[in-house]
Amino acid sequence: MKKAIYLSILLLAVISTSAVAQEQDIFPRGEKAENINHTGDVWLSELNKADSSINSQISLAVFGPNAKLNWHSHSAGQILLITQGKGYYQEKGKPVQVVHTGDVVKCLPDVEHWHGSTPTSGVTYIAVSPKSKTTWLHPVTEQEYQNIKPSK
Amino acid sequence: MKKAIYLSILLLAVISTSAVAQEQDIFPRGEKAENINHTGDVWLSELNKADSSINSQISLAVFGPNAKLNWHSHSAGQILLITQGKGYYQEKGKPVQVVHTGDVVKCLPDVEHWHGSTPTSGVTYIAVSPKSKTTWLHPVTEQEYQNIKPSK
Repeated sequence: MKKAIYLSILLLAVISTSAVAQEQDIFPRGEKAENINHTGDVWLSELNKADSSINSQISLAVFGPNAKLNWHSHSAGQILLITQGKGYYQEKGKPVQVVHTGDVVKCLPDVEHWHGSTPTSGVTYIAVSPKSKTTWLHPVTEQEYQNIKPSK
Repeated sequence: MKKAIYLSILLLAVISTSAVAQEQDIFPRGEKAENINHTGDVWLSELNKADSSINSQISLAVFGPNAKLNWHSHSAGQILLITQGKGYYQEKGKPVQVVHTGDVVKCLPDVEHWHGSTPTSGVTYIAVSPKSKTTWLHPVTEQEYQNIKPSK
């Protein structure tokens, strides 16, 4: 029986290591962003700056659970590639969508929207756009956020 | 001792499931591409088409081991985000680079280059560019490819 216990401990150690590896970030998360246009913990890094040589802006955003951007819009639109976790995405006048790993969200130019994690799960995405201006608007209130009952 | 064996089998089953999950694709791989501009097995899917609403072309490419694109160039450049595995990337006149999960490769407009997996490891990347024309050139020969001794 002692053998069985040792074996279990060893194998459980292997399993935990494996589970951790599964949750590892693909791209290194950037600096924790100051809470200017969001609430909660968000880490941002620039994977490519839209410049004169290639007009593609690519950013990585890692949201801890319970983090949300303010409402905003992009002059040239934006594509979100969800690479990990579960979050919310909402366009003005539309219901909140739940987005998951593998989802591709297309936000057209000048459409007011917000996105974030859910209160209990983090979300990571790659944001892609041509060179673009972001207009920041009002926050999503805590009451609105905590009471979300997504239709999807 | 019987207990120990049962326990081992059960835990090994859990470990294998976990390992499989770790290797799962983030985005569904697309159709297997015809061998016109590459050798080996490559699956392509379009995550976003550069169109009049958002000028960002985003594609997912999954290379099985031992697969390589022909030399080519992009009129507007291209960024490769390596999301899984290990591959090769080479620009004309430069040594072959080994690229890994988490690497970001920037290929400037009209620079002749090729990329692919290594003979023994697959590679997956997300390719991002503004609307762009690809010019296909000659293949990388099997001899060149199999004899690569990367400097990095």
